[in-house]
Amino acid sequence: MSNLSSCSSACGTQGAVDVTGCRFSLYPMTDQFVEVIVSAIHKLNTEKVWAQTDHLSTLYRGKQLHVIDCVRAAFIYAYQPNLHMVSELTFSRGCPGDVDADSFLNTDDIANNLITIPQGKNIPVSAKISFYAFGVDSYMSHIQHVVELAHKYQLSPQKAHYVTMINGSASQIFAYFDEVLAYARQHLPHYVLEATLSVNSPSKVMEN
Amino acid sequence: MSNLSSCSSACGTQGAVDVTGCRFSLYPMTDQFVEVIVSAIHKLNTEKVWAQTDHLSTLYRGKQLHVIDCVRAAFIYAYQPNLHMVSELTFSRGCPGDVDADSFLNTDDIANNLITIPQGKNIPVSAKISFYAFGVDSYMSHIQHVVELAHKYQLSPQKAHYVTMINGSASQIFAYFDEVLAYARQHLPHYVLEATLSVNSPSKVMEN
Repeated sequence: MSNLSSCSSACGTQGAVDVTGCRFSLYPMTDQFVEVIVSAIHKLNTEKVWAQTDHLSTLYRGKQLHVIDCVRAAFIYAYQPNLHMVSELTFSRGCPGDVDADSFLNTDDIANNLITIPQGKNIPVSAKISFYAFGVDSYMSHIQHVVELAHKYQLSPQKAHYVTMINGSASQIFAYFDEVLAYARQHLPHYVLEATLSVNSPSKVMEN
Repeated sequence: MSNLSSCSSACGTQGAVDVTGCRFSLYPMTDQFVEVIVSAIHKLNTEKVWAQTDHLSTLYRGKQLHVIDCVRAAFIYAYQPNLHMVSELTFSRGCPGDVDADSFLNTDDIANNLITIPQGKNIPVSAKISFYAFGVDSYMSHIQHVVELAHKYQLSPQKAHYVTMINGSASQIFAYFDEVLAYARQHLPHYVLEATLSVNSPSKVMEN
């Protein structure tokens, strides 16, 4: 557990730093959930991110491209064709109380995992996302832009209460997240992207 | 799926309405996840909330006390002593594009489920929460207040990157959520409380 003050916690007032982070969890709905999670995490190359696992989630911090690379790879490694699995991701950057500790920023820009695994083009994903921008009056316009970007990746965004629903391959969805975060980094001091990804949901059963 | 514009989606500009909502999901890590979820949902009395289930989550909208009552009861009904389960909850109120449709506001204040089930005093829960306030410059001070409130409920809040970790019984945690939302409703035009609750996590295994 970090002792650092950070966001949604007890932030200080120092300037924001250029660390992108993602706190993520995998929820495989199987009796073998431990094996699925541990096996996926152990396959990752995490040498270009600061990494920490606790009893609720795993946290990666560093350059945006490496953070995305690691969570995409973890999701793809954990995926099994007949297994219902949900993954919860919280991307964040710019909390006023954040610090540049707990991060690796002096790395090159070669995504270590992407070059060794498939991009997830054949993994169909249903997801809900929420984009939050802080400290600006125009936050709704940034949300609107993020939703519009989903069309570019053929994710068919659908409005719903509190979230936007999207559908696409894992490859499309993580590429979309990458562009959303790049847009946010360029335009906003502090933002959060919350996403929940679901694969192989027996939705017809669940909706009855 | 609702066709309404709502938050993190494509909000309009009409005034905010007094509807509290919660989008929540249950993730039981078992081969029998469908039975666990469906059984819990069917036990609920949801006559005082507007309810909708899709392939990703269930949504309740209405008065705050009834929304809390339903998600607490769903969590308690789904709980099993030896089953690792995670629940993801997004409480929200005040999106500029929200509307008072899809809600039940003309109800009494008697919590239907709480009077028929235990409050969850014997269910130990580990959770992470993030509180987000929008459209105000002082958002960090409201986050700070929400974190401080956790002490009142003996939840031992711990700072971590992007979230605050809390620990307590299900009863304590939902009572805390109720007070957080009451505080937010009084002080903020638009807010979101994201929470992830975990029970029976084999954390020592997972952290190795």
